Amino acid sequence: MSKASGLPAHAVLSPGATIGILGGGQLGRMLALDAARLGFKVHVFCPDTGPAFDVSAAHTLAAYEDEESLAAFASQVDLVTYEFENVPARTAEIIARHCPLFPDARALATTQDRLSEKTFLASLNIPIAGFAEVNSVADLEAAVEKLGRPSVLKTRRFGYDGKGQTKIVDTTDLAAAFGVVGAQPAVLEAFVPFEREVSVVAARGRSGEFAAFDVTENRHENHILRTSTVPSALPASVQVDALDMAKRIADALEYVGVIGVEMFVLREDGRERLLVNELAPRVHNSGHWTQDGAETSQFEQHIRAIAGWPLGATGCFGEAQMTNLLGDEVNDWQALAAEPGVRIHLYGKGTPRPGRKMGHVNRVTVKS
Amino acid sequence: MSKASGLPAHAVLSPGATIGILGGGQLGRMLALDAARLGFKVHVFCPDTGPAFDVSAAHTLAAYEDEESLAAFASQVDLVTYEFENVPARTAEIIARHCPLFPDARALATTQDRLSEKTFLASLNIPIAGFAEVNSVADLEAAVEKLGRPSVLKTRRFGYDGKGQTKIVDTTDLAAAFGVVGAQPAVLEAFVPFEREVSVVAARGRSGEFAAFDVTENRHENHILRTSTVPSALPASVQVDALDMAKRIADALEYVGVIGVEMFVLREDGRERLLVNELAPRVHNSGHWTQDGAETSQFEQHIRAIAGWPLGATGCFGEAQMTNLLGDEVNDWQALAAEPGVRIHLYGKGTPRPGRKMGHVNRVTVKS
Repeated sequence: MSKASGLPAHAVLSPGATIGILGGGQLGRMLALDAARLGFKVHVFCPDTGPAFDVSAAHTLAAYEDEESLAAFASQVDLVTYEFENVPARTAEIIARHCPLFPDARALATTQDRLSEKTFLASLNIPIAGFAEVNSVADLEAAVEKLGRPSVLKTRRFGYDGKGQTKIVDTTDLAAAFGVVGAQPAVLEAFVPFEREVSVVAARGRSGEFAAFDVTENRHENHILRTSTVPSALPASVQVDALDMAKRIADALEYVGVIGVEMFVLREDGRERLLVNELAPRVHNSGHWTQDGAETSQFEQHIRAIAGWPLGATGCFGEAQMTNLLGDEVNDWQALAAEPGVRIHLYGKGTPRPGRKMGHVNRVTVKS
Repeated sequence: MSKASGLPAHAVLSPGATIGILGGGQLGRMLALDAARLGFKVHVFCPDTGPAFDVSAAHTLAAYEDEESLAAFASQVDLVTYEFENVPARTAEIIARHCPLFPDARALATTQDRLSEKTFLASLNIPIAGFAEVNSVADLEAAVEKLGRPSVLKTRRFGYDGKGQTKIVDTTDLAAAFGVVGAQPAVLEAFVPFEREVSVVAARGRSGEFAAFDVTENRHENHILRTSTVPSALPASVQVDALDMAKRIADALEYVGVIGVEMFVLREDGRERLLVNELAPRVHNSGHWTQDGAETSQFEQHIRAIAGWPLGATGCFGEAQMTNLLGDEVNDWQALAAEPGVRIHLYGKGTPRPGRKMGHVNRVTVKS
């Protein structure tokens, strides 16, 4: 099949071509499985052996800073994508010399830094929580003066599942709080008294077409996603707002691929209103229900988008709920396997450490 | 995870265990994909590089007669299954020394030889076409005397997709016909004036539980499956007959795994009646619609059965049609990708030779 270096920047990828994936975790694994179903080969690049290796035609075990290995990888594949937003800018740059990278470097740069992301969202007039840049204790003092207590101090980079953040309450010593997040560039966010969390998982294709899955209601425990449910309880007009915001974000980034947009639901004067919390330039845990509950899974949709294929239909079959299996919960597989209609997705990870995402199950009730 | 040699014969396989698959074609590939979804690792053994290699954790490229490689393979996996019925008896024997083989050697011996299969079916009073053993031209003359013309001469072994068979018509020279099938052990089958072909794809678990998918209506072209459709047009009572026959067959073999039972539909005195044509001790092309049209795919069902898991639910979501993509038809992927609701499954094979199964699509209409 066609080799990357010979491709025009946006050539449609034919079955048989090889898709490179940065990251070998469960998202890479599920991308690899759906890519295979569409006839693609997958080459995974990851610094550690991960569950995606077991279902891929090839893998490279090397650091993201290993420029020689990156160049070799990128010259052996027809296109590169990734399963996580913290791909270093330099890594993206080296890849892009050899083959297309989707989503592109701009999507990465915007979303891997909380300050860039918030500045970008604000520039689109997307409603977000108040925020202020914090590079020092003095900055933090000024920010708390402006945004009040409670508020939340978060690192600009590398935060996930509640890591790299601390709450500022009445009794918090600000110098200590800045130390808690590593005394590194950070953002203070105004406290948002949200009722619930929802997300939009959507895709934008290479020629700008956009398709979103239904708004998903998410429940977290200890900052880790527990369940995602469709349909959400949002009024139709608010759902329209949610999809519209996702579309404006994807369009403004000239985004290619699946994007996850996390939102808070606030109740003000008896009406529900949304604030965008965070963007994920990749397939998203809250979209796993689509594997069994939607006409196209988010993983296939991402592959379609980056390959230049038409986006798949995003209709929902009925009611769906995804439940993450965290840590030891994966040991319940026998009971889950015996429960009629439960669709099991296990990641093939070795040790079920507490809070570790080991798998998930989808329960779908087809509407009749 | 637990090693094969330490397993009691029928230990339930836990996620993380390794399933060995003999055969690296599309059936092995789709088994590997669903095994991965359930958290298993897959090791493929095949004499040729095949599409299953690209989605498996490990593979062995060696002949089925390579006893050293077979022993090494079988000692590295927790269980072995296969994607084709022509596994040599000696191969099965070597495997079974190291780990469980499902379906077992008896299922293989019975189904890889047309005469054994027909004798077995006749012993269960399952309706089949008249048949006679043919080991010589003299046998063939006697058989034609008994079964008449037209009739069909088929090799006892290694026939598929219409290969290894020839029709005996009024003008056929019998010595020449015996030569056409290689002058090897064969079976003459009475001509069956069937209207249509259907199949039952069913599973039997290790503890004897049985679950069948809906009867599937199959259309062939040039002896190769073209489409499979559910629901079939059979009257309910005849569908019950079909499922009952499949259950009796699976029970009599103490079968473990998915089995395909191909049947002819005859119309006699205005009523429909079934004859069993052929058994396949494996997942079956006519069951591919279950990937998108049933609560559990036949591939997951096979893995569940051999792993000792409870069988999955077999309900059908509505109307489903599977269409094979043969040879060049795979080049229509762009149009298919643009057709809403079409689920694409491509096998990652290199060259689209005429008649070669390159992929399939499922079209499912959810009932409402």
